[in-house]
Amino acid sequence: RGRSEAAASSKDPLPSWTEGATKAALLDFVERVTREGGPDFVPASERIAVFDNDGTLWSEQPLVAELAFVIDRVKEMAPQHPEWRTRQPFQGVLEGDVESVKASGKRGLMELFAATHAGMTTEQFERTVADWLVTARHPTLHRPYTDLVYQPMLELLALLRARGFKTFVVSGGDVGFMRPWMERVYGVPREQVVGSRVKLRYQDSGGAPSVLRLAELDLLDDGAGKPVGIEQGVGRRPLAAFGNSDGDFEMLEWTTSGAGPRLGLLVHHTDAEREWAYDREARVGKLARGLDEAPGRGWLVVDMRRDWKVIHPFERATPR
Amino acid sequence: RGRSEAAASSKDPLPSWTEGATKAALLDFVERVTREGGPDFVPASERIAVFDNDGTLWSEQPLVAELAFVIDRVKEMAPQHPEWRTRQPFQGVLEGDVESVKASGKRGLMELFAATHAGMTTEQFERTVADWLVTARHPTLHRPYTDLVYQPMLELLALLRARGFKTFVVSGGDVGFMRPWMERVYGVPREQVVGSRVKLRYQDSGGAPSVLRLAELDLLDDGAGKPVGIEQGVGRRPLAAFGNSDGDFEMLEWTTSGAGPRLGLLVHHTDAEREWAYDREARVGKLARGLDEAPGRGWLVVDMRRDWKVIHPFERATPR
Ligand SMILES: [Ca+2]
Ligand SMILES: [Ca+2]
Repeated sequence: RGRSEAAASSKDPLPSWTEGATKAALLDFVERVTREGGPDFVPASERIAVFDNDGTLWSEQPLVAELAFVIDRVKEMAPQHPEWRTRQPFQGVLEGDVESVKASGKRGLMELFAATHAGMTTEQFERTVADWLVTARHPTLHRPYTDLVYQPMLELLALLRARGFKTFVVSGGDVGFMRPWMERVYGVPREQVVGSRVKLRYQDSGGAPSVLRLAELDLLDDGAGKPVGIEQGVGRRPLAAFGNSDGDFEMLEWTTSGAGPRLGLLVHHTDAEREWAYDREARVGKLARGLDEAPGRGWLVVDMRRDWKVIHPFERATPR
Repeated sequence: RGRSEAAASSKDPLPSWTEGATKAALLDFVERVTREGGPDFVPASERIAVFDNDGTLWSEQPLVAELAFVIDRVKEMAPQHPEWRTRQPFQGVLEGDVESVKASGKRGLMELFAATHAGMTTEQFERTVADWLVTARHPTLHRPYTDLVYQPMLELLALLRARGFKTFVVSGGDVGFMRPWMERVYGVPREQVVGSRVKLRYQDSGGAPSVLRLAELDLLDDGAGKPVGIEQGVGRRPLAAFGNSDGDFEMLEWTTSGAGPRLGLLVHHTDAEREWAYDREARVGKLARGLDEAPGRGWLVVDMRRDWKVIHPFERATPR
């Protein structure tokens, strides 16, 4: 790495982004909405940026981290549930029989979530998640899940905050699964994390009040649920939205149909060598309508292979 | 007003609070949790303060502002609803017949809210609220409702923020009723306003997406609903909670039962001359259990007549 490149990148807020149209458009947008007196200036209080999580801020293949958590939890809880040994979808999870789990469909998935995400207090659940993250390892990369964040997106989060944006995560994941670690990993505080949520019930159990997680979905923060989650949890139409799948379509649509300058961006997974390549046919993170409509809607599409010099932070320390 | 008093108050972060036990306890708490290296130090990210609105940050008598909004809206919408002239509770509202409205009970109230709070987009609703606030006047004080905020609480909000706290409103009011004006009036941004909410539905109506307010309650942010609203919208147990009625009991209980230093405070309306005096028997803002249990739980109770030199900001400009 030459001296001149190092000197240039020391001033570059997005050093892991390849010079090109995508990076230029990002920097131009930030410059325009923050230039005081300029025609596109937006006051700081309205600079809201929303980010999907799985596949946008960290890797989601071969399965999203929260599903890995569900599987590990079922295995850990199995001794207290002997009936699971002969009951789907639990049996499938315990025997590593992916086909049986898939065959149990959406209802099976809901059962797995109910068993692992409800029936405990919010504080107990978050502690379980935090403990799991310490020991859990990605099945093929053998690293903690929080290592699998995208270096270019960390830089983008930091740039936006440095320019007065408030950064929110708006993800299909359970909000209690995300809050314990996002402040440390993304710099996004708990109150700026919006996600799917179960219904809650406050209970005062003899002087030790707690909030119980119930086995009933209160919001599925995906697809058309994302603008709803944003209206409820942010209360302002975002200025910029970042996603990677068709589950983010409505979030980008809602964001970019607002008046004045708006930014929509889709991360397109095109790098089978350094990460994964998937889009239209993907089981996880399917991206089809977004690819079709992005050009017409003026949304940026990140070509990971071309636009990102580095994918995960650990690559920087690993000679290639 | 003497020169020395003016000089002293220029350094005093709570100039409208009378010197005494309540003010001293507030200042001591803020000092303890922000003194770096001290035994009670709390990192800034955990300094969350939650405030009820009606009766805690602004006046709520003789009826809460949102109910005045409902009444005005029914009158305004009546020409499009001729059937309301003979249908309760609408007829009662239109004829100023309070008893008939009361007789329609909780169901009647829900009907009034559905008619005025649902069936429009979130943006339409907020614009209606903002427009209403410009012309609406308090029935006895003949001032805009946003004039009726409590000067001592504005000072407390500012002090807490100056000391690294994030201030949230957690109110039984509809979140869409509060967000349009709270940033300007309290310095609380939209995303830090938690309230009751209706269910929402995202709709893409031919390139002009919007979020529709449905006539179904999603959360009643009152009583045991307040800790739920806090868990959903803040995601962290507060360090300090401020309320004025038994609807805030669980919020204060949840807050002050956390580990380490915590603060709970109830505003007791004791000043019939400058504001209103009410508590145990009040129809609006009833405070009984809170008064009974505050001493045992270590909650502060503000005696408005004794503890507040000024109630509303306009008093400062009005000779007494
Ligand atoms: Ca995603
Ligand atoms: Ca109140």
